[in-house]
Parts: sequence; structure tokens; C-alpha cells
Amino acid sequence: MLNFTFHNPTRIHFGNGQIQAIAKEIPEDAKVLVLYGGGSIKSNGVYDQVIAALGDRAVFEFSGIEPNPSYDTLVKSLPIIRDNKVDYLLAVGGGSVVDGTKFIAGAALFEGDDPWDIIAKQQRIKQALPIGVVLTLPATGSESNIGAVVTRNGNKLPFSSALVRPKFAVLDPAVTLTLSDRQVGNGVVDAFVHTMEQYLTYNVNGKLQDRFAEGILQTLIEEGPKALAAKTKEDLDIRANIMWSATMALNGLIGSGVPQDWATHMIGHELTGSHNIDHARTLSIVLPAVMKVRREAKREKLLQYAERVWQVTDGSDEEKIDRAISLTEDFFEKMGVPTRLSHVDLNASHLDELITKLTEHGMVKLGEKRDITPKISREILETAL
Amino acid sequence: MLNFTFHNPTRIHFGNGQIQAIAKEIPEDAKVLVLYGGGSIKSNGVYDQVIAALGDRAVFEFSGIEPNPSYDTLVKSLPIIRDNKVDYLLAVGGGSVVDGTKFIAGAALFEGDDPWDIIAKQQRIKQALPIGVVLTLPATGSESNIGAVVTRNGNKLPFSSALVRPKFAVLDPAVTLTLSDRQVGNGVVDAFVHTMEQYLTYNVNGKLQDRFAEGILQTLIEEGPKALAAKTKEDLDIRANIMWSATMALNGLIGSGVPQDWATHMIGHELTGSHNIDHARTLSIVLPAVMKVRREAKREKLLQYAERVWQVTDGSDEEKIDRAISLTEDFFEKMGVPTRLSHVDLNASHLDELITKLTEHGMVKLGEKRDITPKISREILETAL
Repeated sequence: MLNFTFHNPTRIHFGNGQIQAIAKEIPEDAKVLVLYGGGSIKSNGVYDQVIAALGDRAVFEFSGIEPNPSYDTLVKSLPIIRDNKVDYLLAVGGGSVVDGTKFIAGAALFEGDDPWDIIAKQQRIKQALPIGVVLTLPATGSESNIGAVVTRNGNKLPFSSALVRPKFAVLDPAVTLTLSDRQVGNGVVDAFVHTMEQYLTYNVNGKLQDRFAEGILQTLIEEGPKALAAKTKEDLDIRANIMWSATMALNGLIGSGVPQDWATHMIGHELTGSHNIDHARTLSIVLPAVMKVRREAKREKLLQYAERVWQVTDGSDEEKIDRAISLTEDFFEKMGVPTRLSHVDLNASHLDELITKLTEHGMVKLGEKRDITPKISREILETAL
Repeated sequence: MLNFTFHNPTRIHFGNGQIQAIAKEIPEDAKVLVLYGGGSIKSNGVYDQVIAALGDRAVFEFSGIEPNPSYDTLVKSLPIIRDNKVDYLLAVGGGSVVDGTKFIAGAALFEGDDPWDIIAKQQRIKQALPIGVVLTLPATGSESNIGAVVTRNGNKLPFSSALVRPKFAVLDPAVTLTLSDRQVGNGVVDAFVHTMEQYLTYNVNGKLQDRFAEGILQTLIEEGPKALAAKTKEDLDIRANIMWSATMALNGLIGSGVPQDWATHMIGHELTGSHNIDHARTLSIVLPAVMKVRREAKREKLLQYAERVWQVTDGSDEEKIDRAISLTEDFFEKMGVPTRLSHVDLNASHLDELITKLTEHGMVKLGEKRDITPKISREILETAL
């Protein structure tokens, strides 16, 4: 096992009716900016619950944060914060709203010349507004971690700071009942691939981390399809299991003390940046190709994955690995996401630009051993055609 | 799944050489009281590492905190704290030292008449000195939770407060290499039973909590005996897996959103209070009897435990449950702990007093359904004879 420091102070309020916990979490004299996306929270009742819980506090609003939140949108919130002396941000939405809010939290108090430097130059922020979250889409884990991804001019880039970790997050599975099948499928696959990025590497004998990761993968495999099936899609326990799994998939726990990959994400970000493909759908396309191209480097973990997560115990090692990869693709397809570039109308003619962008963004040594060069990234994309 | 709030802000520094992290964690102008037990930290090098990491800080010492820390011992630290204006407590030891330090942290700033009221009258503390931990014995999980148990005049009683949760904990598996076999065995069994108290109840469809609990149990079953075997007892990865499992077994995570039992602990506390039996050894005696007496109430989970933790898949349901209970007893015996009251020289003549004490301590409705009356507790003890 590798050395690590683990620290996750976000307070999680989980379950039906927990939105009212906001009232205890946010100071009564706070000036609160409520941030959200396209307005679905107004039709599904979440907005009303949030406003009721905020009571007499001074409340301002900033809406229109889009999937893969854009810098240009986010900075429009800064004058509202400044003019109204906003001192608490409440993100109500999925990972994009939370990520966007994290950037705003740092940008609002940024002392440098240009808040884009937080991302482009990875300038460290020294302070940030406090953030609370009401999560409406289980997927990214952003509600209790320190990372965020922001897009500008087709460049989708990450930043992280412990200062933007949410103080609290409300996870009410009931609010996920109104999600579309596409959102549910994307969310489950996103959480699944987050787990794989921290699990499918090489063995360092981190037995508990492995078992926790396998537990998340198995839960998503079991519960994900049920959340799409007509007969069970209203079942709150299924939604709860998915929601808790998505949070645990990327809150720092399963990645503590083990190597991490993230090549699938970095390559996937280029597909979103250049072709506007849903984040999770880039992952479902890239991960199977990573499993194939990195088969040797990941052999021991691929076998463990086959045996423990999919109960594939018959056949040769090669057959077990083949079967695990194909079961992974089947699972993704069951969740309604693509597993090939051709499924999203991309072909070999698009690869040059993707690899150029990846290189421009400095993603030239990817993977748990930092040995995935642009040449190997190209091979991965070719395998995904 | 049940509603829950999960919050665990303790920062964990895990791995070889992490004791030096103390230097970053404790303010440079702090007046630090280092608390420890019988002095083994002086012979195994831990004390020297701690003192080196504390550097120029004002350091005071309080030693002699015994297993099942006694009130009478603990209060002797209070004048040292007061006279020297100590403002940070650093517990260096196992669960007893940490529990004792938690009581001291609250007692030092207690505004009531008598600090024993914190326990006897469960008076809420309003403030506490900050606590750091250097853990030397993985077992209780006290290093990142809010609970503690203190003994006075044969009464072993719990209290808890979020104010006494350690700010940080250093978990260096290397320091556990000098533990005795008895300490290792006790620690593994303690962590195992903590997990069972939160797992072996009734099914609420908390799929991830179940899988995490099963992951801890399987890791302890795999790694525990290796930490006692001559060939592998120096293996740091094995020690690391045990140490991380013990922390995760009682940091609030696997108990979030599921019912909890704790009857084994409450009955076990009377065995320690009246007969001075090691805490873990009371658990290994009581748990198998609880599994037998509560077989019907716990049937569904007993079957899941048999199948998932022990891979018992053949035979009737009754046979699977029998086999799981007997495998649990075998595992405890492999760890060198007793599984019957007769193994610690107790017999039927001792039961009256134990049940009287249990009743006096208010433990009259135990278990996940609060339906274990003193009569059923007696049946459990009779089964354990």
C-alpha cells in the first residue's frame, strides 16, 4: 500500500426530506447565492424546498450553468456576488453546477489579474466562498471532493483546491426520480468509471481499497439497470444505492493508498471539448479501449476484476479478461451509452485533432505509470473507432 | 436505506514515516500534553519520533493510562493541564489511551461540578481541548470517531461528543510490528466485531454499506492470521491492511443508513467491568452466542454473511448459518481469543451478578430492535458458557 493522507470534512445529509438540513447549515445572516442549471429544479419541486429551507435569509440567484460549465457563463455571476456582498454559495444541481460553483467560489475572492489563471496557469487560490450543495444528479462525486472541470473555447480543463470542497451536501434520492433515462445512464457510468480509474491499475496489496471499489462497481452493476427499468424506476432504495455509490466513488477514499489512472478521463475530456459529447459517454467509449490497449500493464487487476466483480471464474486467463471487457461493454450499453466512436459519428479522420489537443493540454504522460504517450493515446482512440 | 448524516473530519496520515506529520498539524506555539500508557512507546522508538516531530513546542507528559482507562487515573492529568496551560492533547497509544484522552479533553474544560457527570449523567460537554493521535494498536477506531469508554469502580460506561473527535490521526503500520500476539489478536477481533455490530442486523437494502462491511470482514479474516504467523508477521502491507480496516470499521461510514446492534458490546462491557477480561475477548465470547440466540431475528443477514463473507454456498439455509457461526468461532480461535465463558474461568454462578449490573446500567433494551431484555441477555450468556 502507498502512503496517503485522507481528509474529507464535507457533512453529508442523506435521505428523503433532507433538504431542510440547509436551514441548520447556512448561517442565518448569510447572503446566499443559489446557483443552478436549466431550471428543471423549478418544475420538480426542489427549488421550492430549497427556498423554503433558506427562510428569511437574503437570497440571490444565478441560473443557466450548462453541462461542462463554461468559463464565459460562470464569470457572469461575479458582479452579482460583488454587488450584493454574497457570502455563501448554494449549488443546486448535478456535477456541472457544483463544478461551476467551485470555480466561482475561488474566482470571487481571487487576488490575481484574471480568474482564468486559476485554471490556465493553475494559480493556487488562497481563499474561497463557502459552498453548500443540494445534489440532483448522482454522478461526479463533486459534492464532497476538491476537484472541478471548466470549459473555455473547446478546452475542458481541471483544477482543484481543498478550499472549494463543499461544507455540506444534501443527497435526497427522491429528487433523482425526475431525471431522464439519459441522465441516469450517464450518472451511473460516470461513477463506474471514476471507480475504475482508481481500481484498474496495478496491485499494491491495498486489500480494503480494492474491496470497497469492487463493492461500488457491483452495486452500480446491480442497481443501475433497475433505475432504468419501468417496473423499478420509482424505487427509492435503488436511487439511494446509486446516489451513495456515486459519492463514495470519488470522495478520496477508494483512491487513498493506491495508484490512479485517469487516462480515460483525460482522453475523454478532448472528445467533450472538441465534439461536445456528454462526459459519461466519452468515458464509456474510451474505457473499453484502455482496457484492451493496456491489457498487459493491467493484467493482474483485470483478472481480479473479472473474478470478483463479474464472477467470471471459468476459462483461461485470456478468456476471463476478454469476458470482463465484453461484460463491461454490455453493461454500458444496458445503461444506454455508446461504446465506440462510431456510435457518436466520429471516425479516423477526427483523431489527428484530438491528439493535437491532448498534447497541447500537456496530457502527454498519462496513466498510473505515466507511460501513455500521445502515440498510445492514439492507439486507444483507434481501438475505440 | 435509513436517513443519515455522515461527517468525519479527522485527517488521517497513513503509512511508514508519517509520525513527522505531527509537525504540520499542531500549532507551533501549542503547549502539548503527550498522553500514553505503560511506556512501550519508549522501547519501540515511537516516543522518540513523536518528541522529534514536536520540535521546540512546550511538551508535558502524562503516562500510565491503562487498558479500559479508569476515571481515577485520568483525572490525575487535570492539574497538569491546568497548571501548565496545556492547549493540545496528543494521545500516543491504542484505543484506551485515545478514549482516556477524549475524556480528559472534555473534563479539562468542563463547566459542571464533577467531570464524572459527563459519563454518569451523560451531561453534554460544551467545549474540549483539541486532540491529535498517534495510533500504536489498530482496533477500536477511536482515532477518528466521537466515542469513548471509561471505567470507574467496575462500571465501564460510554460517552460521545463530536467535540472530542481527533483533529488528526497518524497511522503508521510499522509501529504495530512490536505488538504482542495477544494485542494483535485482540485488535483484529475488536475491529471484526465492530463491523458485525453494524452489519449483522436486518436488511434495509443498504447495498453499499453491506459490501463495505463485508470487505472489512474479509480483509480481517485474510490478513489477521498472517499477522500472527511467523513467516508473515513482519509484512508491513498486512499490518497496513489491518490498520486501515480497523479505522474504517468504526468511523461512522459503514453504520450510516443501516440499523445497528451493539448488544455484544454492552454485554461484553459487564464482563470487563466485573472480571477485568480484555475488551476484545469479551466480544469473541459474546458474539457467537448472540448469533445463536438471535438466529431468527438476524436470519437474512446471517445467510448473506455465510454466502458473501465465508463463501458458504452449499447445503440448506440452516446448514449455511451453522457453518458461518462455526467459521466465525474458528477465526476467533485462530486469532488466539476465547469463545466461551469457560475459557476465561467463568460459569453459571457468575451470571446473576452480570445481569444485575447490566440492568443497573440501563442496558435493558439492547439490539437493533431494542428487544433484548435482561432475560434474553441472560440466555445469551448461558449460551456462551
